[in-house]
Amino acid sequence: MAAPDVVVNLAEKLALFDDHWSPRIVGQVNDLHLKIAKGQGDFPWHVHEETDEFFLVVRGSLTVRVRGMNDAVIGAGEFFVVPRGVEHAPLADAECEFLMLEPAGTVNTGDGERGELTAEDEWI
Amino acid sequence: MAAPDVVVNLAEKLALFDDHWSPRIVGQVNDLHLKIAKGQGDFPWHVHEETDEFFLVVRGSLTVRVRGMNDAVIGAGEFFVVPRGVEHAPLADAECEFLMLEPAGTVNTGDGERGELTAEDEWI
Repeated sequence: MAAPDVVVNLAEKLALFDDHWSPRIVGQVNDLHLKIAKGQGDFPWHVHEETDEFFLVVRGSLTVRVRGMNDAVIGAGEFFVVPRGVEHAPLADAECEFLMLEPAGTVNTGDGERGELTAEDEWI
Repeated sequence: MAAPDVVVNLAEKLALFDDHWSPRIVGQVNDLHLKIAKGQGDFPWHVHEETDEFFLVVRGSLTVRVRGMNDAVIGAGEFFVVPRGVEHAPLADAECEFLMLEPAGTVNTGDGERGELTAEDEWI
């Protein structure tokens, strides 16, 4: 998949959908997909053994619970990187919006079984 | 270099320096460095043969002139990815601030000769 040849406005893309914990792909840098998502409520604990995971919050606040570490409370204009192999679980009391970076093909619910929160790859 | 284990506030990091076109490293995702920079004026044409380059503007407006394409005019909250192998030259009439993604070791002035605008790797 070639990199997009246009300027992408995050707010415009985020206005295109309403569901939570369902990332959409908006760009690619080398082997990494740039994804945007909205979050509200609990997301299950999971792990990505082969990749770090980047979260940049653009609206609201996202908490990432991280096994063995303090919670990462990420506000707008802040980012956090979950190291590979570290179990984590996003959480948002109120709706938040964020940008993620993950290798193409990464499953949002991690390396375990797929479930109802497992998202399919979708470019918008 | 391990990924940072703290939440990074972009505005706080950007307040730590004033020089233009001199990226600072603020995080890492797999083999990619997350860098922040301020830009004002012209940056020379250059190319990265081996990597795409991601620009996310957080304040102001950054224009990326791209050989063979229209200029990418990137406002706050917008991103653009320069495909690998494509010559480009950033430009900013007024000061802007942006986040970049580049493989660790990428030279900001590209694959040609190093010059006075070539930045050394510096974490902040």
